[in-house]
Amino acid sequence: MNSKYKLIKFIIDKFENTEDFISVEEPLEISLKYKEKGNWTTKNLSITMRTPGEDENLVRGFLFNEQIIQDISDIDKIESFGDKVGSYKIQNKILVTLNNSKNIDISKIKKDFLTNSSCGVCGKSSLDALEIIKKEKTKNLISKISKDIIIQSPSVLRKNQSEFAKTGGIHASGLFSVEGKLISVSEDVGRHNALDKLIGKALVKQQLNPNIQFITCSGRLNFELVQKVLMTNIGLMIGVGAPTSLAIDLANRFDMTLIGFVKGDSFNLYSNEQKVIVN
Amino acid sequence: MNSKYKLIKFIIDKFENTEDFISVEEPLEISLKYKEKGNWTTKNLSITMRTPGEDENLVRGFLFNEQIIQDISDIDKIESFGDKVGSYKIQNKILVTLNNSKNIDISKIKKDFLTNSSCGVCGKSSLDALEIIKKEKTKNLISKISKDIIIQSPSVLRKNQSEFAKTGGIHASGLFSVEGKLISVSEDVGRHNALDKLIGKALVKQQLNPNIQFITCSGRLNFELVQKVLMTNIGLMIGVGAPTSLAIDLANRFDMTLIGFVKGDSFNLYSNEQKVIVN
Repeated sequence: MNSKYKLIKFIIDKFENTEDFISVEEPLEISLKYKEKGNWTTKNLSITMRTPGEDENLVRGFLFNEQIIQDISDIDKIESFGDKVGSYKIQNKILVTLNNSKNIDISKIKKDFLTNSSCGVCGKSSLDALEIIKKEKTKNLISKISKDIIIQSPSVLRKNQSEFAKTGGIHASGLFSVEGKLISVSEDVGRHNALDKLIGKALVKQQLNPNIQFITCSGRLNFELVQKVLMTNIGLMIGVGAPTSLAIDLANRFDMTLIGFVKGDSFNLYSNEQKVIVN
Repeated sequence: MNSKYKLIKFIIDKFENTEDFISVEEPLEISLKYKEKGNWTTKNLSITMRTPGEDENLVRGFLFNEQIIQDISDIDKIESFGDKVGSYKIQNKILVTLNNSKNIDISKIKKDFLTNSSCGVCGKSSLDALEIIKKEKTKNLISKISKDIIIQSPSVLRKNQSEFAKTGGIHASGLFSVEGKLISVSEDVGRHNALDKLIGKALVKQQLNPNIQFITCSGRLNFELVQKVLMTNIGLMIGVGAPTSLAIDLANRFDMTLIGFVKGDSFNLYSNEQKVIVN
């Protein structure tokens, strides 16, 4: 979603009054309705600053990646509500009602839920402290991938970003097959939201097949993004920019292959390079 | 802070085993100790994923920008604690003890504190919903600035980023005088943290003089970054990349001049262009 804004463009030595498309950023309040000791309870989970569009996929991915749900069938329904507010007359509240399923781990719905982090730092090690609930290593790894597919994936992603073409200011995540085919793309001003949307959409469309897929993200790679991809069991992740230390540490811990700094004819392999035969 | 990691570099058609510097990302747990009805209370406020270094300035800026403190003198002391954990043997917990001052607004210490957002979306308008406590418009505006200084500020910032030169993967914020002199720079893998560090440092060093200063940020400009700069009363903000809709809306509301997409010999003026005479 984007909107036209007036602006003054300065180029070389002159000013020009013009208009340009700007990526929309609006708050989304996510609430959860679930059964607790036989009674229905509603809880505000999080507010995220997102680009409207794919709100339902955003919350599906968010709940799955935060391990509040283990399967898309844990969700009974998703409803947008509240007044149509702001410049764009959209609803900025969304309520997810969970099924009364035994699979739902209510203990994950923390009293003080923090977007972008888990509970307290425990003092053992900083990585343990972030409470990665995923226990097993990534099982399904692509065993072979072409160098050309790695190098081309960011430009394939960019060419399929309808919003970026207009605004030049929005992140994207793409789900790719090992042959380099773009299966799905999602965009958002927040890179974590773009990835939540992509994974939420993949879950509902049953697109995930970790054996033969990888995910490419438009920006730098941090702990949070790697953690979200780990939840899909996809074992190969590509970023256009630099990874952080914790992104590499996490990838190593769960046998994920992390590739960064994809530029021109070059890229860097940061972890588990032996698991992917690049040819 | 950065750390050497092994990696495989692929360039054109060959692989090379090498090492490179990676920006460190570690969780910081921020706790606050304050007097409530005559009794000292300690509360966990937030966990943020930060690059270690300038932790004290980070929490100073965070508390000020979130309006938990109104003045740096509201802080009695800041102590790092906890075991030295992880690969880098650093303390990832920090405790801020507030003075028992009447100026401290304890109501700001919310039960469910969310990093990156304020309390519930109220349904009036999406911008109101984010609870900007700042009521007055930015008073002190630079009335005149040279085009060259605008265009050069991102490269001046980058040249003074000691961490970026090593890792190529870290954000920065810089405090500049209207003559283009860089007063201070802070770096972090999180762009919001870089800005919190910059503002925290400016507060403690008493560097802020909004009449004759502007702030430049390395990335795109969103609601959160504009809100933080508004707290300093600085009325001119420059970003290398694109602003979001809410960043422009917020700048307009508080009479801030927002400049984005500074590239080569060009930039865009998004708001209050009449307030700054560019020559």
